[in-house]
Amino acid sequence: MDRTTAKNAGLSTHRLEALADGIFAIAMTLLVLELRLPDAGGPGDLASRIAALWPRFATFFISFIVLGVYWFAHHQTFYFLARVNRTLVWLSILFFLGAALIPFVASLLGSYPQDPVALSLYGAVLGLLAIVGYVIWWYITGDRGLIDEELDPELVRRVSRWIAAGPVIMPVAIALAFVAPVLSLLIYLALPAVFVLFNPVDSYLERLRQTAR
Amino acid sequence: MDRTTAKNAGLSTHRLEALADGIFAIAMTLLVLELRLPDAGGPGDLASRIAALWPRFATFFISFIVLGVYWFAHHQTFYFLARVNRTLVWLSILFFLGAALIPFVASLLGSYPQDPVALSLYGAVLGLLAIVGYVIWWYITGDRGLIDEELDPELVRRVSRWIAAGPVIMPVAIALAFVAPVLSLLIYLALPAVFVLFNPVDSYLERLRQTAR
Amino acid sequence: MDRTTAKNAGLSTHRLEALADGIFAIAMTLLVLELRLPDAGGPGDLASRIAALWPRFATFFISFIVLGVYWFAHHQTFYFLARVNRTLVWLSILFFLGAALIPFVASLLGSYPQDPVALSLYGAVLGLLAIVGYVIWWYITGDRGLIDEELDPELVRRVSRWIAAGPVIMPVAIALAFVAPVLSLLIYLALPAVFVLFNPVDSYLERLRQTAR
Amino acid sequence: MDRTTAKNAGLSTHRLEALADGIFAIAMTLLVLELRLPDAGGPGDLASRIAALWPRFATFFISFIVLGVYWFAHHQTFYFLARVNRTLVWLSILFFLGAALIPFVASLLGSYPQDPVALSLYGAVLGLLAIVGYVIWWYITGDRGLIDEELDPELVRRVSRWIAAGPVIMPVAIALAFVAPVLSLLIYLALPAVFVLFNPVDSYLERLRQTAR
Repeated sequence: MDRTTAKNAGLSTHRLEALADGIFAIAMTLLVLELRLPDAGGPGDLASRIAALWPRFATFFISFIVLGVYWFAHHQTFYFLARVNRTLVWLSILFFLGAALIPFVASLLGSYPQDPVALSLYGAVLGLLAIVGYVIWWYITGDRGLIDEELDPELVRRVSRWIAAGPVIMPVAIALAFVAPVLSLLIYLALPAVFVLFNPVDSYLERLRQTAR
Repeated sequence: MDRTTAKNAGLSTHRLEALADGIFAIAMTLLVLELRLPDAGGPGDLASRIAALWPRFATFFISFIVLGVYWFAHHQTFYFLARVNRTLVWLSILFFLGAALIPFVASLLGSYPQDPVALSLYGAVLGLLAIVGYVIWWYITGDRGLIDEELDPELVRRVSRWIAAGPVIMPVAIALAFVAPVLSLLIYLALPAVFVLFNPVDSYLERLRQTAR
Repeated sequence: MDRTTAKNAGLSTHRLEALADGIFAIAMTLLVLELRLPDAGGPGDLASRIAALWPRFATFFISFIVLGVYWFAHHQTFYFLARVNRTLVWLSILFFLGAALIPFVASLLGSYPQDPVALSLYGAVLGLLAIVGYVIWWYITGDRGLIDEELDPELVRRVSRWIAAGPVIMPVAIALAFVAPVLSLLIYLALPAVFVLFNPVDSYLERLRQTAR
Repeated sequence: MDRTTAKNAGLSTHRLEALADGIFAIAMTLLVLELRLPDAGGPGDLASRIAALWPRFATFFISFIVLGVYWFAHHQTFYFLARVNRTLVWLSILFFLGAALIPFVASLLGSYPQDPVALSLYGAVLGLLAIVGYVIWWYITGDRGLIDEELDPELVRRVSRWIAAGPVIMPVAIALAFVAPVLSLLIYLALPAVFVLFNPVDSYLERLRQTAR
């Protein structure tokens, strides 16, 4: 696509993708700053002091995977985009705000793994990402000339149903944080797994590739 | 554009764009490091301790949006650039210096939300960004062969008037910090909103795209 | 490769490369946060206080080089990739998780350079990177249409043997951490050197280039 | 340049450029973490407490500009590169190590602006960057097929002389740190200015562009 065509088609997607890649890379790497030993005790009991950090390790691992899930979802969504406009830039910045909040709620959850407030705030940020993600998909697949025209409408519907899981389930998980924290935590763990395993985009691309051979 | 043409045309824009995307992504994500609970009290009063952080949450949110506004302004400006030269690189590095200072003034404002000094320093950094942004637009739209020759002169004028708002209003907001802090804060909030809502570039690109169809 | 072809061929590699470059750049730069003077004493004994940080300087240097080695291995591996799929994205995110953990284990080793627990945890993260790196190479060179079809099968075998060194040697180094810490540390130092010096990809590319002339 | 040609020509430059942009962006932004108020006193004396940070502001500003200078030098150097090889990757990683150390020596200098040890360590890192930068330029302009063949040999010589200033002057500045700290600091300030103002690459590109018209 040469410069003139690109201009007529509006802003290209690559700068917003670069900002996304930067923000997710930083948020994922900043999580490691939570893995710190308390400044006390001698080197003798190092193993047990590290072992005592286990809620932080668990939160690090879950948060890293969650950010990976949303980065990949962003990658796949933008794959079908032909251009961006102002509304999409601002929806994306709101999405990035959610991603940038993950290290904060991960820090809370790592310090207070049993506390319903920490659990529900973690869920609230996951819910923000899920809702904004859903709105972005709804916005770009509308009749606005943003998306690749050859995109299969059936895929659009299947992805809509797939990513609706987040906005539907997260309020339940947040509510459960106050009555059954363990159940709430299990949902936070299960949701990324559902995203990873039942991804309709990957099989769609695979079929396209087989057909093209 | 092949390599030889690019060389004759001078340094391409993509490395400076990559540095910009990196610096804005990092500054936006580092803001989250300000959202830290003071190390005191048990897990019982977690909700109220988090609620007490509200000035930091507000500053995080405003600063994230401000950085988003300036990143988007940079993105749209560079869209029309054909090449960069030394002066533009150094103006941009000064612009990035302003962006990199946002986490510092946000930290001050989050800790001392009522203090006129914190408020006016925050405004000073916003003012620096606004002034350098204005100088960059004035510099690249001058007769230096940096910008796309087909760019509509009317758009250049409209953008100049639009981004002149910052350098004009910020000194007022800084002065108000000492007599009417709330008014000053409202201006900091209003300025990004003005940038977001009355953006002449987006409608220009939209018109171009409609015409090209 | 135009957009339609790219789509038929599956997701392109550039976003995953951008995430990799971001995560390695951040992990490498965050290492510097470990180089901090303890808050005590006057400026008089600054030289000796800095000198007392030598285990942290050594760990900084080793960790920076180790991350450089794995970044370069990732760069060379992805050079031969034509596209990515879901499995490869998740293997890569696991690889990035290992890279993001380096600042944590480097911090431990810098604080407790003599402690077998710190040494073995450092080795465990190096081992994770080595094993995931090996699995990635095995996965992409399998019959999955991910890799450039012209790639020399002999190079594939030589690289497999070369990168098998890590998964084989690291368990030995981890075990040695408990009986001969110095030997263990020497292996951590030697492994990157082996990777740097006996790199079959570089000589392969050099031969290709000579032939093409 | 299509994929096959690129492969025959060796590894392309863009991944190393992306790592460079990431590391410089992060090092430049991490500098802001040094701008922290000591945790003491009420909000009343905020202005004087901020003013007391002036050595840190000065160091922030100098370090930001120094990193900008070296980033731009890297950008201009890589502009003429056709491909990278293993040696160049490792020279670059050593260069990045110097850049990543800037926030550490800036922190030292900001805390102990009068101390010859802090001053000389700052100079040592500047010297490392200057020397590795010189070696990189010497290496890529040698007869190794790395650089654009049309590059003017006269420019190569002029750049060599220009960037030799660093390795020659820095040992003097480091020695002066112990006898005349102010003079030493002035050299640290002057060197970036020399780099910025007497840059032969920019005028060379400008001439090329004028000729091509």
